[in-house]
Amino acid sequence: MASGLVGSEILKIAAEIRARSQKGRKICNLTVGDFAPTEFPIPAALCDRVVAALRAGETNYPPASGVQELREAVSRFYARELGLDYAASSILIAGGARPLIYGTYRALVDPGDRVVYPVPSWNNNHYCHMVGATPVELKCGPESLFLPTRDALIKALPGARLVCINSPLNPTGTAIDAEALRQISIAIVEENERRKSTGERPVFLMYDHIYWMLCVDGVQHVTPPKLVPEIAPYTVFVDGISKAFAATGLRVGWSAGPVDVIERMSALLGHVGAWAPRAEQVATVALLDDPAGIADYLRTFRPAVNARLGALHAGFEQMRGEGLPVRSLPPMGAIYLTVQIAAMGKTTAAGAALRTNEDVRGYLLEAAEFGVVPFQAFGYPGDEGWFRLSVGAVSEADIAAALPRVAGALRALK
Amino acid sequence: MASGLVGSEILKIAAEIRARSQKGRKICNLTVGDFAPTEFPIPAALCDRVVAALRAGETNYPPASGVQELREAVSRFYARELGLDYAASSILIAGGARPLIYGTYRALVDPGDRVVYPVPSWNNNHYCHMVGATPVELKCGPESLFLPTRDALIKALPGARLVCINSPLNPTGTAIDAEALRQISIAIVEENERRKSTGERPVFLMYDHIYWMLCVDGVQHVTPPKLVPEIAPYTVFVDGISKAFAATGLRVGWSAGPVDVIERMSALLGHVGAWAPRAEQVATVALLDDPAGIADYLRTFRPAVNARLGALHAGFEQMRGEGLPVRSLPPMGAIYLTVQIAAMGKTTAAGAALRTNEDVRGYLLEAAEFGVVPFQAFGYPGDEGWFRLSVGAVSEADIAAALPRVAGALRALK
Repeated sequence: MASGLVGSEILKIAAEIRARSQKGRKICNLTVGDFAPTEFPIPAALCDRVVAALRAGETNYPPASGVQELREAVSRFYARELGLDYAASSILIAGGARPLIYGTYRALVDPGDRVVYPVPSWNNNHYCHMVGATPVELKCGPESLFLPTRDALIKALPGARLVCINSPLNPTGTAIDAEALRQISIAIVEENERRKSTGERPVFLMYDHIYWMLCVDGVQHVTPPKLVPEIAPYTVFVDGISKAFAATGLRVGWSAGPVDVIERMSALLGHVGAWAPRAEQVATVALLDDPAGIADYLRTFRPAVNARLGALHAGFEQMRGEGLPVRSLPPMGAIYLTVQIAAMGKTTAAGAALRTNEDVRGYLLEAAEFGVVPFQAFGYPGDEGWFRLSVGAVSEADIAAALPRVAGALRALK
Repeated sequence: MASGLVGSEILKIAAEIRARSQKGRKICNLTVGDFAPTEFPIPAALCDRVVAALRAGETNYPPASGVQELREAVSRFYARELGLDYAASSILIAGGARPLIYGTYRALVDPGDRVVYPVPSWNNNHYCHMVGATPVELKCGPESLFLPTRDALIKALPGARLVCINSPLNPTGTAIDAEALRQISIAIVEENERRKSTGERPVFLMYDHIYWMLCVDGVQHVTPPKLVPEIAPYTVFVDGISKAFAATGLRVGWSAGPVDVIERMSALLGHVGAWAPRAEQVATVALLDDPAGIADYLRTFRPAVNARLGALHAGFEQMRGEGLPVRSLPPMGAIYLTVQIAAMGKTTAAGAALRTNEDVRGYLLEAAEFGVVPFQAFGYPGDEGWFRLSVGAVSEADIAAALPRVAGALRALK
């Protein structure tokens, strides 16, 4: 199994950029779904609380399911902010969101089981490979903002064990709307009703909404159980502090779901040992219980993210107005922007023909010091020029300086 | 798979004790392989360095294989302290030792592969279950201090993919001697030489020495590649700061091994997301590079552990001298003591017959507020009265107060 597993493509591109940076190049690096702490520090109060917890001796093992006070705080947080009713026993704490995705797959999916997910999406192909699942990929195009629809899903549901939806979506920065998610949830509930008479195991929905606090103004984040309460017994949420609080390195995530699934995930992740560090868990209790503090933080954090997304979007739309072969989808959430750079078929000034997304990626890095990730890294096939731009590690000045370089590089193509 | 997985038996016993504590009972709790921070705080300098790293913005993702400076620091640490030559590229950082054990199993073992380990040992049965391996258990009795010998191993080697050895051993607190480990290493090297002609995949050795800095005076910790250099290409070390620095909640562990295995483990654990938090990784660099600081810390830490082990050992040997049916193995390392309490066949004052280790465990908790873990929790069969006593969460006063209660409870048996 392990020898068939490849590392994340994004990390490989990141390594290429790191090598280039070390040679002194100043790159506008839009490749990694992470934050530069100089641009996006964690909340000062969160930092202070981790320090206080360490000083207070919160240095030994956390319980396998997480510090009880944090499970209770997540329960309160979901009730208050999302109107969701999950007891602490339905909450599992882990060392970030990834272990919870892995835990959901391992707890629910046996080898050969079918797992349905849209492409582009983040790493579901890798998780399927790891557990030996049969992937059922729903290719979602720009016409649906790269998000799944009921019609696409319903054909894939028979025989499926798990459906994976992420909103706001990594890599696109688009968010599912209430009506589409409601219809998808109803389809899953109806499928499970049908299965009750056949004895077939139910299909579950993994709802990864790690970016839900980072929606742009006017976009309302929605959740399946709030729209269709009957789906709650089949829904596993994936969430954490990593993105909304720029705290990817603190390793605190959580799932909410049916108690029996949560307990299986806990037993499994307990042996894996993918636990959140104890002091960081204790610190997160006070963070989640402080709505005013969260609002204060997001009051500067979200506009800072959105200004970057907006500047890139406006820049590419301006190039489009100039007749360059680009387009950009309006940003809706997360830290990502979807841009199409349809430069295939063109030739560089040096005489190199651009044939693939990978060619375009390499050209933009070489000619414009502009680092982006092709949708192939998210399982989306085809060289139509779709790219993810991630803004967590750049300043507004970086973007302002880079856009003319990109426009120049595109103008130089023949 | 997941529904067949059971949580750690030790955690279940711990939950029983927690419930009893909450009712106000004062228990001498020797069940959990962890530290009470009031008894065993982490090094003050380590705490200061985590705080400084957080304040300096070390809050974003660590690289998938770990912060490079830490990989280099582990490399220096192993060269300096153990005489082992591992480049930074042979070191993988993860969120504690557990993910590295899991990663070793997943990277090397396919379903149906044979995994050889001694019993008693910690959780190898669970890891075999998780990856679908065929367990080959070597029952090791008190005559070899519960440690494997070459003669026992050699019969199990044909067809084996992985051999797991832990020293100092959880649960017994005994440590393998140089000659036994040398012979075992030679047997593995010879087996792999044989396999070269048949094309069969080699057998690897996972050497978990997470407690190696906690040997009692006079016990010399040994490693396979130092004794038999030819075994290095087949050896994966598991180690970390959790035990030697009482830092189980900080979640920093590492493996050293052949580059190709380390890279497979890294790809795998990267998707699992079982990473050490970044600030804790940065702080560990300075810790490992500070031999005087480590020596200072261990100068108080080790005698504090050993005083507890010694008091329990002396207490049980005194009961033995009195004719009570107990014995204790001299402590050699880790935070554990092996005690035999052969009370089976006796009857309590209340008229209950003690038939099994579990009966004795329950009786000692009820009658003496003395919490221990039977060797069954470590896969060791038979009701011969063997128990693990773990001293990280008790004071010397707790032990002094508990020993007369235990003696009294044993005297009360008929």
